[in-house]
Amino acid sequence: MSTLLHIDSSAMTQGSVSREVAATFRQEWQAAHPDGTVVYRDLAVTQVPHLSAAAITAQYSAPEAHTEEQRAAVALREELIVELEQADAVLISSPMYNFTIPSSLKAWLDQVVQFGRTGGEGGTVAGKPITVVVSRGGAYGPGTPRESFEFATSYLEKALTGLLGAEVDLVVAELTLARVNPAMAEFIELADASKAQAHEQAAAKGKALAARLAEPAAV
Amino acid sequence: MSTLLHIDSSAMTQGSVSREVAATFRQEWQAAHPDGTVVYRDLAVTQVPHLSAAAITAQYSAPEAHTEEQRAAVALREELIVELEQADAVLISSPMYNFTIPSSLKAWLDQVVQFGRTGGEGGTVAGKPITVVVSRGGAYGPGTPRESFEFATSYLEKALTGLLGAEVDLVVAELTLARVNPAMAEFIELADASKAQAHEQAAAKGKALAARLAEPAAV
Repeated sequence: MSTLLHIDSSAMTQGSVSREVAATFRQEWQAAHPDGTVVYRDLAVTQVPHLSAAAITAQYSAPEAHTEEQRAAVALREELIVELEQADAVLISSPMYNFTIPSSLKAWLDQVVQFGRTGGEGGTVAGKPITVVVSRGGAYGPGTPRESFEFATSYLEKALTGLLGAEVDLVVAELTLARVNPAMAEFIELADASKAQAHEQAAAKGKALAARLAEPAAV
Repeated sequence: MSTLLHIDSSAMTQGSVSREVAATFRQEWQAAHPDGTVVYRDLAVTQVPHLSAAAITAQYSAPEAHTEEQRAAVALREELIVELEQADAVLISSPMYNFTIPSSLKAWLDQVVQFGRTGGEGGTVAGKPITVVVSRGGAYGPGTPRESFEFATSYLEKALTGLLGAEVDLVVAELTLARVNPAMAEFIELADASKAQAHEQAAAKGKALAARLAEPAAV
């Protein structure tokens, strides 16, 4: 039996494309793997605080010397890190806010990346499959005028592989503002096609990952 | 008389290179411009919450129809936006955490970037000089093996120019972990040189900006 950690980060709990596409992945994973467990974390509902000086300094002193504040900071970090370590696979959904991931997701990352444990050589998250669903309001793909403003997928890929050694797989839905912003009405067809494709990819990836995790060799 | 908005974001209020270099800029600005005002915001002390659904949805409904939660979200955003709008110049210091800016600074950005007001064509922050001080634990400059993992200066430059139309000036201190991490001891000289150069640049830029803001034409 394997565990999927599912993390949503869009501030919008309704009408979020990144959440919807991630839900498709999760459904297929569950359907293909009914005895699996899903641990769900909604970063818009349970806010993760910004990494604090107490959390940072606690790494350099013995637990018995910790202040009350350091103990609380370490306990929060421990909860988030253990949740990540215990998952066999991770699903993260992220909208693009101001060209990159929301602060809610960055706060989670800053808490869970810890050198000598989850991060660095031989870290506890090395090799873990992380499927990342990103939605972007406009078009930022290769060859578009906004390509150099893309710090969402590019950042997540570098951070999750470079810091954690995770195995990252991306699903992207673009132009999600076309149905919201009248100035982008001409892109509605492209936006719908991009979303449909993202759902298809998410479904296929969810199914494939469940199959892979169900194989005895992968346990 | 002009106003400088000074924003620090390192979680460490002591021993932070980005804070120290920004302080040098501020000192020179104040020395050259003694009748100026400095508004200070410490994102490690007064935490800015992640942008919420209430803040987002409030933009699409009339103020008199807002819920209690929406009113609170709008009031916070208004405070941060007005502070930014009223500044003649802005100084932002940022460490690099996990290849990019801390979540505390991203939360501030997500709150202050508002399309149709601070952001987009003819926004209220267009043309405002923003000096950005970034400290990075390792070496991420052009030509280094880690260049493609640099999402701190690259992101801030694109975000502040592309979203707000600000005039961005960068100061960078590198290899700040050399004096902390024994494995990086060989880089101590380079790190010290980088820090010294950052202080020099910050001093010169602070002085130059104060002089420019004191000119009648710039008022």
